[in-house]
Amino acid sequence: MSETRFDVLCIGNAIVDVLAHAEDSFLATHGMVKGSMALIDEARAHHLYDHMGPGLECSGGSAANTAAGVASLGGRPAYIGKTNHDTLGEIFAHDLRASGVHFATSPLSGKADPATARCLILVSPDAQRTMNTFLGACTRLRPEDIDEAVVRESQVVYIEGYLWDMPEAKDAIVKAARLAREAGRGVALSLSDAFCVDRHRDEFQTLVADHVDIVFANEDEIKSLYCADTFDAALQQVRAVCKVAALTRGAKGSVVLGENELHIIDAEPMSGVVDTTGAGDLYAAGFLFGYTQGKDLATCARLGGIAAAEVISHFGARPEADLKGLVAQRFSL
Amino acid sequence: MSETRFDVLCIGNAIVDVLAHAEDSFLATHGMVKGSMALIDEARAHHLYDHMGPGLECSGGSAANTAAGVASLGGRPAYIGKTNHDTLGEIFAHDLRASGVHFATSPLSGKADPATARCLILVSPDAQRTMNTFLGACTRLRPEDIDEAVVRESQVVYIEGYLWDMPEAKDAIVKAARLAREAGRGVALSLSDAFCVDRHRDEFQTLVADHVDIVFANEDEIKSLYCADTFDAALQQVRAVCKVAALTRGAKGSVVLGENELHIIDAEPMSGVVDTTGAGDLYAAGFLFGYTQGKDLATCARLGGIAAAEVISHFGARPEADLKGLVAQRFSL
Repeated sequence: MSETRFDVLCIGNAIVDVLAHAEDSFLATHGMVKGSMALIDEARAHHLYDHMGPGLECSGGSAANTAAGVASLGGRPAYIGKTNHDTLGEIFAHDLRASGVHFATSPLSGKADPATARCLILVSPDAQRTMNTFLGACTRLRPEDIDEAVVRESQVVYIEGYLWDMPEAKDAIVKAARLAREAGRGVALSLSDAFCVDRHRDEFQTLVADHVDIVFANEDEIKSLYCADTFDAALQQVRAVCKVAALTRGAKGSVVLGENELHIIDAEPMSGVVDTTGAGDLYAAGFLFGYTQGKDLATCARLGGIAAAEVISHFGARPEADLKGLVAQRFSL
Repeated sequence: MSETRFDVLCIGNAIVDVLAHAEDSFLATHGMVKGSMALIDEARAHHLYDHMGPGLECSGGSAANTAAGVASLGGRPAYIGKTNHDTLGEIFAHDLRASGVHFATSPLSGKADPATARCLILVSPDAQRTMNTFLGACTRLRPEDIDEAVVRESQVVYIEGYLWDMPEAKDAIVKAARLAREAGRGVALSLSDAFCVDRHRDEFQTLVADHVDIVFANEDEIKSLYCADTFDAALQQVRAVCKVAALTRGAKGSVVLGENELHIIDAEPMSGVVDTTGAGDLYAAGFLFGYTQGKDLATCARLGGIAAAEVISHFGARPEADLKGLVAQRFSL
């Protein structure tokens, strides 16, 4: 690949996370499906916040977590996502830039517009996270927010599936993918969530078959995409259509498919899982960092596993440790 | 003591913490004294925030951390402190109430008034924290914010020394202490910070000698109070004037003085120290919880040590574990 200004451009919902511990009974009382992401309106956001425990605020957003991960690995990421000019928007922008991510999307301009998005994340005693997202300003992502120069100057454009929940964001994504193609860049897609796949199955199937170079999915998502009963059945389907697929399986590690390639990579050894928020995002970070450095697919998967293991060892969806140093410890690239 | 509605009323600066990792070189570049608390204005707050790493926001404030600790131990705390009606103010109030603390101080009403306070906390690789506080709305704590009924209905009123940095807050504190005395309640004071003691040495000496039942201080603070060269020299001075003094010494544990009593309590065994933010606040929580349950001074000190050990084992200044359960594991009260 020719030298570009950025390795990975991530496009997604710009969200500040509010993390709190919660028992399973709390999820049941409030009608949540454990481990999933639900879209909620402002009234429900206030209601849940009033009832949940003390929170810890940190910047999140699936693709933004990936961008922060790429930076921590020593890569050169950029990000596009919509915030408002409010306290949470300032926190989001500060944290992303302080992580080393190029972020220049102009925020909405104030009180008349929807507030910066927040995601109320309930972390269960078994470390699973259940997410409740109030999208707010994210619903205003427009094609004009896609900076052509940044797309052309990024080796891979990485898009989170969550964006499909908003019609206008979809136009923005289509524009980004088209520009990337025209410039000879790669397009990667994360399926994000099994329920999100459920809402957009046909479109996602077409995308994966015809428009995407690399697809990221966990076991539930890839099964949902093909209405498959087993992981293997889904695997055979995606294998028939996709250039590269990186499929994560939690403690079972990941499976990576390429043209005439299939690798089964065990999970990194680790002691305690504290909070699984961000596991998939950081796997994608490690994988894409390796990919844009020209590494083979098995190495990309291993890098994904190392980054994911770090993020689930603590509260929050962005790396705390210096991933570059961590990777250097594990193996010299 | 007669039955009251609350065990401990904590009064202090209502602050949201922004925690970030920082190397010692960052502290040096920005002229900070490692381990101390500095008051900063809004311009410096913006400047430091622009230059520091990605943050993690969580509710803080010394006395508020103590109140949250008392709640986690199973006690009945109340809190008085001033916020604004803004995003950080809402976060502060939510977290405190969700922890089980009674908090009914009316916030300032908007943009014309100073914003809710924030404290930029740089955590060094050796787990020490260096604090930069923009006081904002805290500077507006007034005598009318002191709810008489709550003071009368609390066994102990606990005041943080940081309040002395604001003349009007001092009037509020004097009112609270007077009301507590009239109702036959105890008054406790934390010296908060060696530099804070330096700014108010004469007043603090008078308070400790004449108006306070329990004083909390770490080694630097008690030495600063009496301009003493050694811990022992400071110990002899405070012993001559104070009813109860609880002196914390980090890894060396704590020393507690009462009338004709002196106890030396070793630190709780623990593995890794992650972030010392909140150590003193949680020690006070454990101690005051025991004290208001009628426990002997040595037991109070041990409870303080258990609560402090929990809070320094993770990022942030409030307990993550259920302290009541932790204490039950260590010894049955």
